[in-house]
Amino acid sequence: MPLGPGGRRRVNRGQLNPVGWGYREQALDDDERRRLIGPARMWFGKAFGEAEPAPVPEAIELPAVRVRVPERLSAFVRVDDDVRLQHAVGRSFRDLASLRRGRLDASCDAVAQPADREQLAAVLEWCARDGLAAIPYGGGSSVVGGVNAENLGACNGAVTVSLQRMNRVLDIDTDNACVHAEAGILGPDLEQALKPHGLGVRHFPQSYFHSTLGGWVATRGAGHFSTGLAKIEDRVRQVGVLLPDGRELQTRALPASSIGPDPNRLWCGSEGVLGVITEASLRCVRLPTQRAAASVGFRRFEDAMRAARELLQGGLQPTQLRILDPYEHMLSAALSGGDGQGALMILSFESTAAPVQALLDGALTVVREHGGQPRAGGGDAGGDDRSQGWRNTFFRQPYIRDALLDHAVISDTFETAVPWSGAEAMYGEVREAVLEVLNAELGTGMVTCRSTHSYSDGLCLYFAFIGPGRREALVEQWWTIRERAARAVLACGGTLSHHHAMGRDHARWAAAEVPGAFRAAVRAAKRELDPAGVMNPGLWFDE
Amino acid sequence: MPLGPGGRRRVNRGQLNPVGWGYREQALDDDERRRLIGPARMWFGKAFGEAEPAPVPEAIELPAVRVRVPERLSAFVRVDDDVRLQHAVGRSFRDLASLRRGRLDASCDAVAQPADREQLAAVLEWCARDGLAAIPYGGGSSVVGGVNAENLGACNGAVTVSLQRMNRVLDIDTDNACVHAEAGILGPDLEQALKPHGLGVRHFPQSYFHSTLGGWVATRGAGHFSTGLAKIEDRVRQVGVLLPDGRELQTRALPASSIGPDPNRLWCGSEGVLGVITEASLRCVRLPTQRAAASVGFRRFEDAMRAARELLQGGLQPTQLRILDPYEHMLSAALSGGDGQGALMILSFESTAAPVQALLDGALTVVREHGGQPRAGGGDAGGDDRSQGWRNTFFRQPYIRDALLDHAVISDTFETAVPWSGAEAMYGEVREAVLEVLNAELGTGMVTCRSTHSYSDGLCLYFAFIGPGRREALVEQWWTIRERAARAVLACGGTLSHHHAMGRDHARWAAAEVPGAFRAAVRAAKRELDPAGVMNPGLWFDE
Repeated sequence: MPLGPGGRRRVNRGQLNPVGWGYREQALDDDERRRLIGPARMWFGKAFGEAEPAPVPEAIELPAVRVRVPERLSAFVRVDDDVRLQHAVGRSFRDLASLRRGRLDASCDAVAQPADREQLAAVLEWCARDGLAAIPYGGGSSVVGGVNAENLGACNGAVTVSLQRMNRVLDIDTDNACVHAEAGILGPDLEQALKPHGLGVRHFPQSYFHSTLGGWVATRGAGHFSTGLAKIEDRVRQVGVLLPDGRELQTRALPASSIGPDPNRLWCGSEGVLGVITEASLRCVRLPTQRAAASVGFRRFEDAMRAARELLQGGLQPTQLRILDPYEHMLSAALSGGDGQGALMILSFESTAAPVQALLDGALTVVREHGGQPRAGGGDAGGDDRSQGWRNTFFRQPYIRDALLDHAVISDTFETAVPWSGAEAMYGEVREAVLEVLNAELGTGMVTCRSTHSYSDGLCLYFAFIGPGRREALVEQWWTIRERAARAVLACGGTLSHHHAMGRDHARWAAAEVPGAFRAAVRAAKRELDPAGVMNPGLWFDE
Repeated sequence: MPLGPGGRRRVNRGQLNPVGWGYREQALDDDERRRLIGPARMWFGKAFGEAEPAPVPEAIELPAVRVRVPERLSAFVRVDDDVRLQHAVGRSFRDLASLRRGRLDASCDAVAQPADREQLAAVLEWCARDGLAAIPYGGGSSVVGGVNAENLGACNGAVTVSLQRMNRVLDIDTDNACVHAEAGILGPDLEQALKPHGLGVRHFPQSYFHSTLGGWVATRGAGHFSTGLAKIEDRVRQVGVLLPDGRELQTRALPASSIGPDPNRLWCGSEGVLGVITEASLRCVRLPTQRAAASVGFRRFEDAMRAARELLQGGLQPTQLRILDPYEHMLSAALSGGDGQGALMILSFESTAAPVQALLDGALTVVREHGGQPRAGGGDAGGDDRSQGWRNTFFRQPYIRDALLDHAVISDTFETAVPWSGAEAMYGEVREAVLEVLNAELGTGMVTCRSTHSYSDGLCLYFAFIGPGRREALVEQWWTIRERAARAVLACGGTLSHHHAMGRDHARWAAAEVPGAFRAAVRAAKRELDPAGVMNPGLWFDE
């Protein structure tokens, strides 16, 4: 397969697991599993179920195929069960729990894997003509039902349109410190292509190995940076979009403009509903040559949040500013060491030209005024190690979720952004609400929280919950918990998601967040861009 | 008139000049005028016309009024010639030159000055029912024909809807460092309300005294900051919009979200076409307590741009980073002192918490590597003075334009943003193109350029041109020059405007910049939000 300028084949990093997160090779080994399960069994007592592994893929029953693939598309559109299963659901807890039932109620009928815009256009034309839902699919790591063939409305079937073969790097633009690539490129492939040029996107979501450029843009994802460049939409300078009627749209690559609303921003967060994002250009950063880091203990999470607010409003923008609440800190210490006492702030500044030690010193002065105690072990190095250890754990977490799911444990996360003024109340009230529903539904459970991204006017709170479920009712129990959590988040002035998008899961509550006239305006835009109404139906601002 | 929490009456800073820029009291005095005119006459020789002041307002003929104001609106809708004249045009060169003809071809028929949403809704309802164009009007400082009652399509008349009585501060939110105010508040009033709280918007466009919060948002304006918070759209956390059918829309105030495309971004740059922005919440900054500044000489503008790119891509974000090209520098020196040799970079860092001297030192290291020579007179203080001097001149420039217009001199500016990779070619080619058209049309002329805003992937270039026009053909000559400039900007990969919006003036070239499918999508959204098609017709992505 010819790959354009700068293009390369994808590095094969493992065998995708059709019934769990990520790569099979990365699943917990026996030793890790023992170290995890022992404490979990002690914690949850006899509610903790015996291990029952996920079914083999061949044992999972899929709905019958409702479509007939036109001859001319058959080279890159497949209806085999194995490929359908791999693409049938995303990777939320409910997705993985559904797979364990041995039968999916909903699945795409076919999976298209176009290699270029011509093949993609042919697939979309087929969908539009035959009234088939076209579900754009990047890395398949959605945790909000973004790629599930559910709620298809009037569509007669569903074609998942994987962009992963459209993964070429189109231009590495060192003059403007930008990268232009096809939407299907995975995070590590993009980063690897940039590294020799001293550039990086440094967008490291938990799904880093299983998410794509196009997916980041379509979901308004967030990555590595805790401030400034946190959200992908602030880094998108250009998008290319293919519409189901064959029209193409390329925005101009500009640093800024005032000629009407920014077209890029309509597709940031569009989740495949307004056409397929086929390519994008992102603003990169130079790989840092200077770094200064520290970890800072606080008695309470609330104190650490106040210190964070002071940093941001004072004009400091740490590259990393993460706060673990005492529960999260305790769990983290159990997995990767440390004392696990109180709340922990992880703080770092990176740069290639700006002096960073002075910034860190300035930040430490501020955090001390709010009761923060820089950790022993020597400020920077200690903090740096802590930060790295935490990051490694970060990428392991979804694999841990799978191992716990073997024991019917419900463990999941949800995240939100909220103004500073509402953050302390939210922390208390959402914790309370979720603990209450965990106790009612599961008999016990734990809630942890961390702050991952900060702004001058608020922050992102990332909650996790865990408790022993009933194997036959995991999906229903999960929905009960998520419903309670979403209501609590909205009641506390938060958004349904800071960086995981709406998907089909949040769509049911979107009316509480998104003004009706804006929903109507976007629906009108959609009717113009997708007159057949086939682009990812079922998640977009449904009434 | 009761004013809500924190609300105040507007400070009267002068008498608006109906036939020129700004306040009458601020016009050039005789001494200033002599100092300006002497050199200009020497420069342009006998092409420089004798002074002919603007006509008195009463001498300017307006088109007949085509509307009858309903009785119930008569308390706040006026059809008097004086108020129509004040609102008939914006403040572009062509607007001011048109006024000097003694007759306007187009004008609003009535001016509404609602004091609250109820009155505003009544005005919009009248417009929608009677098919009258409703032209939202903030400070009236548009330089792109944004408020001119031209190209009204099927509308039977035009009502200019001034927001200036809807100017209350609704909330000063110190917890989140935000301000929430009605759209009609003027820049200085907003800043004054914030100051006692240690906060500021610090959005200082040249129109600062004559532009409003709503106008900034509707036009995607840019202000004081050269990096980071330069563009208003990056600081808008909430908007309230009133639609002509009476629907209201309030977005939620959130630091960030991933629930669909950001609704705020549809109204940023909407220019009154998608309803009236009635209120907005902006992210503020703390008033700086630390400042470090320098001015740096460069032999060539191109060298200074390379240094600026290096600063931005290296991760430095100077609060001010302005570069005057040698011609601009020479003119600036003639007006406010200095040697005026070569290009000049003005550089400053401000903060309340971050140490700034280390940042400035880091920046000076970078600029020296690119041939920059920090100016004698002692780095900071010298730079600081230079920066203040430049700023004072900045606010005087439109008054100078008026004084020159007395002599039939065409002097105007246009600005663009362009990737770094295209900046040097653009600087050369746009200069060349405009000089060529100045020579052809006016026989002589001068072009200057400055860079006002910088991004990691490009910068804003702000061109100015000046030359002696023919008094009876000023508007036509100006159009010829602007046409040539716009074509050159587009050909060099620039945007038609970095921060002045599209307006009616740029709309004719918008198809070269904005993808057709996006224009169609926004038109569809408009039909949904403004079914009667009365909101500011004639400037929006016309085909």
